[in-house]
Amino acid sequence: MIFPNHIKNLRVKLHEVIFGYDTPAGRNFDIFLIVAILLSVLVVLIDSVGPLHQSFDSQLFWVEWAFTLLFTFEYLLRLYSSQSPLAYARSFYGLVDFFSILPSYLALIESDASFLVVIRILRVLRIFRILKMIRYVSEANMLLRALINARRKILVFIVSVLALQVIFGSVMYLVEGPENGYTSIPLSIYWSIVTMTTVGFGDIVPHTDLGRFIAAITMLTGYAIIAVPTGIVSSELMHEFQQQHRYDHIDIEKVCLHCQRKGHDLDANYCRQCGTKL
Amino acid sequence: MIFPNHIKNLRVKLHEVIFGYDTPAGRNFDIFLIVAILLSVLVVLIDSVGPLHQSFDSQLFWVEWAFTLLFTFEYLLRLYSSQSPLAYARSFYGLVDFFSILPSYLALIESDASFLVVIRILRVLRIFRILKMIRYVSEANMLLRALINARRKILVFIVSVLALQVIFGSVMYLVEGPENGYTSIPLSIYWSIVTMTTVGFGDIVPHTDLGRFIAAITMLTGYAIIAVPTGIVSSELMHEFQQQHRYDHIDIEKVCLHCQRKGHDLDANYCRQCGTKL
Amino acid sequence: MIFPNHIKNLRVKLHEVIFGYDTPAGRNFDIFLIVAILLSVLVVLIDSVGPLHQSFDSQLFWVEWAFTLLFTFEYLLRLYSSQSPLAYARSFYGLVDFFSILPSYLALIESDASFLVVIRILRVLRIFRILKMIRYVSEANMLLRALINARRKILVFIVSVLALQVIFGSVMYLVEGPENGYTSIPLSIYWSIVTMTTVGFGDIVPHTDLGRFIAAITMLTGYAIIAVPTGIVSSELMHEFQQQHRYDHIDIEKVCLHCQRKGHDLDANYCRQCGTKL
Amino acid sequence: MIFPNHIKNLRVKLHEVIFGYDTPAGRNFDIFLIVAILLSVLVVLIDSVGPLHQSFDSQLFWVEWAFTLLFTFEYLLRLYSSQSPLAYARSFYGLVDFFSILPSYLALIESDASFLVVIRILRVLRIFRILKMIRYVSEANMLLRALINARRKILVFIVSVLALQVIFGSVMYLVEGPENGYTSIPLSIYWSIVTMTTVGFGDIVPHTDLGRFIAAITMLTGYAIIAVPTGIVSSELMHEFQQQHRYDHIDIEKVCLHCQRKGHDLDANYCRQCGTKL
Repeated sequence: MIFPNHIKNLRVKLHEVIFGYDTPAGRNFDIFLIVAILLSVLVVLIDSVGPLHQSFDSQLFWVEWAFTLLFTFEYLLRLYSSQSPLAYARSFYGLVDFFSILPSYLALIESDASFLVVIRILRVLRIFRILKMIRYVSEANMLLRALINARRKILVFIVSVLALQVIFGSVMYLVEGPENGYTSIPLSIYWSIVTMTTVGFGDIVPHTDLGRFIAAITMLTGYAIIAVPTGIVSSELMHEFQQQHRYDHIDIEKVCLHCQRKGHDLDANYCRQCGTKL
Repeated sequence: MIFPNHIKNLRVKLHEVIFGYDTPAGRNFDIFLIVAILLSVLVVLIDSVGPLHQSFDSQLFWVEWAFTLLFTFEYLLRLYSSQSPLAYARSFYGLVDFFSILPSYLALIESDASFLVVIRILRVLRIFRILKMIRYVSEANMLLRALINARRKILVFIVSVLALQVIFGSVMYLVEGPENGYTSIPLSIYWSIVTMTTVGFGDIVPHTDLGRFIAAITMLTGYAIIAVPTGIVSSELMHEFQQQHRYDHIDIEKVCLHCQRKGHDLDANYCRQCGTKL
Repeated sequence: MIFPNHIKNLRVKLHEVIFGYDTPAGRNFDIFLIVAILLSVLVVLIDSVGPLHQSFDSQLFWVEWAFTLLFTFEYLLRLYSSQSPLAYARSFYGLVDFFSILPSYLALIESDASFLVVIRILRVLRIFRILKMIRYVSEANMLLRALINARRKILVFIVSVLALQVIFGSVMYLVEGPENGYTSIPLSIYWSIVTMTTVGFGDIVPHTDLGRFIAAITMLTGYAIIAVPTGIVSSELMHEFQQQHRYDHIDIEKVCLHCQRKGHDLDANYCRQCGTKL
Repeated sequence: MIFPNHIKNLRVKLHEVIFGYDTPAGRNFDIFLIVAILLSVLVVLIDSVGPLHQSFDSQLFWVEWAFTLLFTFEYLLRLYSSQSPLAYARSFYGLVDFFSILPSYLALIESDASFLVVIRILRVLRIFRILKMIRYVSEANMLLRALINARRKILVFIVSVLALQVIFGSVMYLVEGPENGYTSIPLSIYWSIVTMTTVGFGDIVPHTDLGRFIAAITMLTGYAIIAVPTGIVSSELMHEFQQQHRYDHIDIEKVCLHCQRKGHDLDANYCRQCGTKL
């Protein structure tokens, strides 16, 4: 497609404002968007509170639609101004943007009494809008990299813990049984997850002596192994740190005039390769 | 302003005693103050206990006023003896000092039956006196520095966790609904905070199978990501440590007689700069 | 024993498929087995849910027997194809394999109304099958090595914590007594384990002021010492890490032509042993 | 005092057996003592269980006295065989030994109906016997050293957390008030300790919206700062580790024949001080 020059310029400008962070306009757009996202989430929260829902029913309805239309317009602009609309639509943030406006329209089409429960689920999906906020935080990268490096160890750990929880749950089902609230093995596994993660709701608790003994072992196991994921993440972060500060005392721009070797200590006087004075 | 010499000396002396830590008088003043602060907090605590409040009503009233007058006098002395009263009044501790005596006087002015609730809030603010204690602890600095270095990573982490909690809370509101105690999305978010932080009060618990399944995922998520802030703080503290011990094997007083370079290894025989024997 | 050649080959082939991970057939066998194990565990879980048990009683019965026969056949094949059947049967996985099929047969023999409770225990032991899954994850080794290195420190820690819990539990028994739910010292120790591991079910809580004070100390102690196992595991993992990355800057393939010494720095120009130019 | 030689020898022998760990007799004595301590603690636990207490009243009474006499005899032997009885009696383990036998005798003297409550406290003190066990674990030293190094940071941390808990507790007392279970500020501080340590009994929970909001902040604060003690202990343990492994690659016995310098790398061929071949 060949565009006249001024339309091309409009697209470049829009891209700068919508996707960019460097210009004042781009920054203002982002700040405006974060505020709008937070407000729209707030409206959903308010709408779920019974008394407020009844008092401000129609107002909340219109505000929600205003936000939906705003975000729809923003989504279309993003599609229009990106160099490759398809790549954007398929990217993680493209999908989040799409699924944060979809539920409102689906609620419109399927507005039927018998489907009310489904509509409720669709409505809450709009909460995904808040995920957009992560885009604006660049500091998250180091954390993410450490978590990605540690993903296999964390997976192994979680699988082992789940296996333990299945076993502990089953044993508790046998020991305590339905008469003490452990009505099935899945429920007992739910209990052992509640216990090993040290959440401890207290809705299901052991009543027999043997059950309490096994529960104590479950808790101590959970207490002991809570150290493992922390150790994994700590050591990954320490490693990232040391990589970052490894060459702090070296000046990579310091060149030996004799052998061209770069990267000497900040206080070095002689080349560490050929011994020539620097 | 020009002061006669003996008044100048009084101010300097007072400053030494009130703000200083080096003289015996300064140390004794600080110890006396900590004891007074702890006692006055204790009086507030005792006053809030129903039976004790009724038995010792007038005694507690007079003791509280004695402490208020004491701290007011101390505050005025601080203002008087500091080189720049305004700078002190605006500093963190100046504000804490001020707000720890204000509530008592406000309670006096607005002593009205209908304003009782407000007075209660004012009374508790006197608890801020305890914050004064931090001033006396110098060991806190290394911890604070590590926390300040890690502040951005911790913020990113907390924002991500809050976003997750909003989503988990909303999903639980849809799945469990008002009939199981999840009466609104904000309350469901409160539940997801209680669950992900592994507090687990048990005042609101899931009753459906799907709800329990999602609750289990919420707990495991909380269990897995509790490792992240710990890892952040651990690695920051380790870094502080290594910085501190980096030059343990170097004698900074060891000088090369030829090139005057200081700071050689403890067991070095030749200058690491010019090669002269040390 | 002397086998004809083609039977020998069969055993070698079987060993390759059942115990090996390198060939496509071995990989497929393992994946098939994991799916079968997970499905059989799922059947046990479903069977424990009251309504589902009544609806699908006979179907579940036959599916369970199908899995039992499958795993029995697999166990016999493992015995047959391993070079030393006895060594396999005594190994950790050999025992897990055996105990994951045993309960079904025991339930058959003792299928008697009065032994129903025992049968329940036998049935649930089949859950140990899930432990088999750990075999398929090789990433677990580094974690295990760190935990094994730290085993003595963790044991010392757990013994100290248990001693503390016995003391805290006994004190709470004296302070609160049977009238507040602390009916015996073992139950009070159960309470102190629930409290110090920060699980906090809330089925037993202190009601007296002194009891609440001691409970607060118990919690703060638990909060303070939760740091210890984490610190142990973190430092062990960090050590493993540093061992792994110790020789990152060394090229083990770099050989000195004069003295045959291997393993020089990536940027070394002269042999660090005999001084010959590399 | 001058003893005949054979009595001197008896004392030396006894000291070897009772205080020593090197001879088989000393080891056997220690193992016997640990078993006796654990059994006597078990008897106290059993005695506190209502039904068991009634069934085995007299048996438990005699067994308890047998243990008391045994430990008394052991205490006297320790006094007799130690070089300085007074130093032993004043040492930590001397005091623990003394207080683990004292309560039984006090219960004898003050065996009066009206003093029953006091006797209960005295009885439980016998539980301190279990502390003796720590003596037998030498692995605890590294952990203890790390904790002692970190004691000032941990103290600063605990004081800050307690100050926060006083403030959070007081605010909750004002917001929720006695009508929602927060009957006094000390009780509200107890609640905030239960919440910030993530124990979460659920016996006291907020009922107002503002109270739940402040409770959520309390929890998130507790969640965020749980990282600090872990970070402190982790970094201390890491430091201990690095100190231990600092000289792993150095052979301190390798001496240069020319300059007498000790301590060269395991694979060094030339003295790192004077360049002489090793």
